[in-house]
Amino acid sequence: QGTRDHPPAQAALRDRLLSAVVSCFKRHGAAAIDTPVLELRETLMGKYGEDTKLIYELQDQGGELLALRYDLTVPFARYLAMNKITNMKRYHVAKVYRRDNPATSRGRYREFYQCDFDIAGQFDPMIPDAECLKIVHEILSDLQLGDFVIKVNDRRILNGVFAVCGVPENKFIPACSTVDKLDKVPWEEVRSEMVGEKGLSPEAADRIGEYVQLHGGLDLIEQLLQDPKLSQNKLAKEGLEDMKLLFEYLTLFGITGKISFDLSLARGLDYYTGVIFEAVLLHQENEHVEEPVSVGSVAGGGRYDGLVGMFDPKGRKVPCVGVSIGIERIFSILEQRLEASGEKLRTTETQVLVATPQKHLLAARLKLISELWDAGIKAEMLYKKDPKLLKQLQYCEDTGIPLAAIVGEQELADGVVKLRDVATREEVRM
Amino acid sequence: QGTRDHPPAQAALRDRLLSAVVSCFKRHGAAAIDTPVLELRETLMGKYGEDTKLIYELQDQGGELLALRYDLTVPFARYLAMNKITNMKRYHVAKVYRRDNPATSRGRYREFYQCDFDIAGQFDPMIPDAECLKIVHEILSDLQLGDFVIKVNDRRILNGVFAVCGVPENKFIPACSTVDKLDKVPWEEVRSEMVGEKGLSPEAADRIGEYVQLHGGLDLIEQLLQDPKLSQNKLAKEGLEDMKLLFEYLTLFGITGKISFDLSLARGLDYYTGVIFEAVLLHQENEHVEEPVSVGSVAGGGRYDGLVGMFDPKGRKVPCVGVSIGIERIFSILEQRLEASGEKLRTTETQVLVATPQKHLLAARLKLISELWDAGIKAEMLYKKDPKLLKQLQYCEDTGIPLAAIVGEQELADGVVKLRDVATREEVRM
Repeated sequence: QGTRDHPPAQAALRDRLLSAVVSCFKRHGAAAIDTPVLELRETLMGKYGEDTKLIYELQDQGGELLALRYDLTVPFARYLAMNKITNMKRYHVAKVYRRDNPATSRGRYREFYQCDFDIAGQFDPMIPDAECLKIVHEILSDLQLGDFVIKVNDRRILNGVFAVCGVPENKFIPACSTVDKLDKVPWEEVRSEMVGEKGLSPEAADRIGEYVQLHGGLDLIEQLLQDPKLSQNKLAKEGLEDMKLLFEYLTLFGITGKISFDLSLARGLDYYTGVIFEAVLLHQENEHVEEPVSVGSVAGGGRYDGLVGMFDPKGRKVPCVGVSIGIERIFSILEQRLEASGEKLRTTETQVLVATPQKHLLAARLKLISELWDAGIKAEMLYKKDPKLLKQLQYCEDTGIPLAAIVGEQELADGVVKLRDVATREEVRM
Repeated sequence: QGTRDHPPAQAALRDRLLSAVVSCFKRHGAAAIDTPVLELRETLMGKYGEDTKLIYELQDQGGELLALRYDLTVPFARYLAMNKITNMKRYHVAKVYRRDNPATSRGRYREFYQCDFDIAGQFDPMIPDAECLKIVHEILSDLQLGDFVIKVNDRRILNGVFAVCGVPENKFIPACSTVDKLDKVPWEEVRSEMVGEKGLSPEAADRIGEYVQLHGGLDLIEQLLQDPKLSQNKLAKEGLEDMKLLFEYLTLFGITGKISFDLSLARGLDYYTGVIFEAVLLHQENEHVEEPVSVGSVAGGGRYDGLVGMFDPKGRKVPCVGVSIGIERIFSILEQRLEASGEKLRTTETQVLVATPQKHLLAARLKLISELWDAGIKAEMLYKKDPKLLKQLQYCEDTGIPLAAIVGEQELADGVVKLRDVATREEVRM
């Protein structure tokens, strides 16, 4: 349940999509790493907040207690700490596992690919963070998915908001995960969860509501830096000043048109410590809607300066920022688009079919195809002793093979091969 | 335990190796598919003989009972049956899982890549089987792993041998898995396991011993076809006649020099029904040994005509033959070779570092690098506001970046960029 086989047409489309993403990661100088699908259970525990219950655990068959990785970020942090690496720019494309309620039509699976790019190391503020946003912008533009917006916020600003609204510090994380639902449900519901389940005072919730419904650009940052309460909070002030710097860099990258500083963005995971962001597509193409409607997140990420330290015996921190591309949702969109276009993707790359027009020529086909393979040419033949020529040419048309190399009795006697262009039916002897 | 992280240098080497294998599979016209890492437990049970105990099971967390795939063959057969596909040539490169005793120095892991190529469908005998052997030959030759031999046998011949030696039919599978150990232990030990654990009579074991120690080529096939006992056995005769046909095709492919018809080859898995084969490297390069010594199997496969039918509700059979490349062992060899050569593999593909020679030029770097990325050029910069030029050039040398694009105050004023060849130190303004 919640998993799927990829038949050839889907596998070919996914390969194309993954290589677009990987080539962007390589353009930004990242190296590839790979980590096991299996992690020690204790590595994954306490990193994902409420979602920890979605982790797949392996049966205890003797030996270590294992689980399937839930994302690629925690294994990356574990890898850095284990190898005492303090400086690295890496990408990782691999499957992750979540015992979630699958919604396969919207591209939500229990086994799915993640494509992650992360920068680890102590650097000057917001330069790597800006690059992560540039990467999201490049990938979503390259793939021509239609209009999108990248929402940006900062955990320090959110925590500052909670503090000045009178939320006690031990309720920051629950408050945060409630705010995170604002992209799916209206403020009234979020408010009642805050007051009911999370036990905030109605006054605090109302004050939070005033902040988290704000979104804008540089002007909003300036406005909040002047906010009499928020500007007095050390964390919020740091966050706002970094946000201003981030917008400066994004202006130099020329991408602020797609960026929205959005105080409702919270991100579910515990480990974020600074900038957080999430890209959403504004409407499905082919749907003519008046108001841009979000069809959900296709990329997300943020800064997690404390995670590596959790795996280091001495707690040494390695600041990190990274982005994860939501490849499955993008894949669903591209798949629907391909289907609508009626275009048929070739699933093989075969250049030539080796064919014979008469019986008793299997040996000639085997000799010729062997020569072609050894010369690096992509070649196929039918696995029959005496196939009809028509069947062989039909196979070319069905699978998109452009050429047929035909050896008949005459060609054998003359020491030549007849090369036929399947589409035009032109033939040359060579 | 028994798993590993791949740091960038290893990931780059593995990528290179996998693309060599995949390009061979594509040369032979295969399409890619992908299946989940998770399979239903019942799908995997009863397919792997004694090795079933090595399957990783997931904890029962509610819902389906799951396990991690043990190989790519059973999922392929499940995929064919589920989708009622009767004809397909596919490759699949993915990780599989075995709770085995790891021997990591010899490239034996609990999580490892398999690279499989399979041909499913009802075809004329031995044509697809011959292609599988050709593929093994091409890959091992391409990778220049040194001398190798591909051992070939047929389950029908083995079963015929057991029959004429007086083994009851219900002991064919145990007898087979005992013969399989002949590549690791001497005949005396195999014999005593047959008589002791497996309960064969000493006479039967001795008769088996006479056959399974034979190996050769076409002459041995002819000899056995004349064998008064074996030639009377229907299965053995079929197997031997197909083996003769296989050798005919392999002669046309020009690869019989590396093929050995070897009656000791049994292969551990239950599902094989016809031709089986296994490629072994004859000696490590750089080791000057008199006698060629096997360093273990690097590829294997065979025909499994009954497996798909086990997943079809009506038991409809789809004949299949396939090969699996033992990529981890090959990877270990290439890794050792790379280490010995002292060659350093680049782990990134960055073409140019954007650098500044003075302070306060971060904005100029951000603007230039953004232009380069948008033009599809692989570019990096240091994540510092004011890095020293020497540090920037040092970074190029450390990571193999060939060019530095330098913007200083003068270049900014002149509207140019200074492009520096890192190795030769030549500079041009452009």
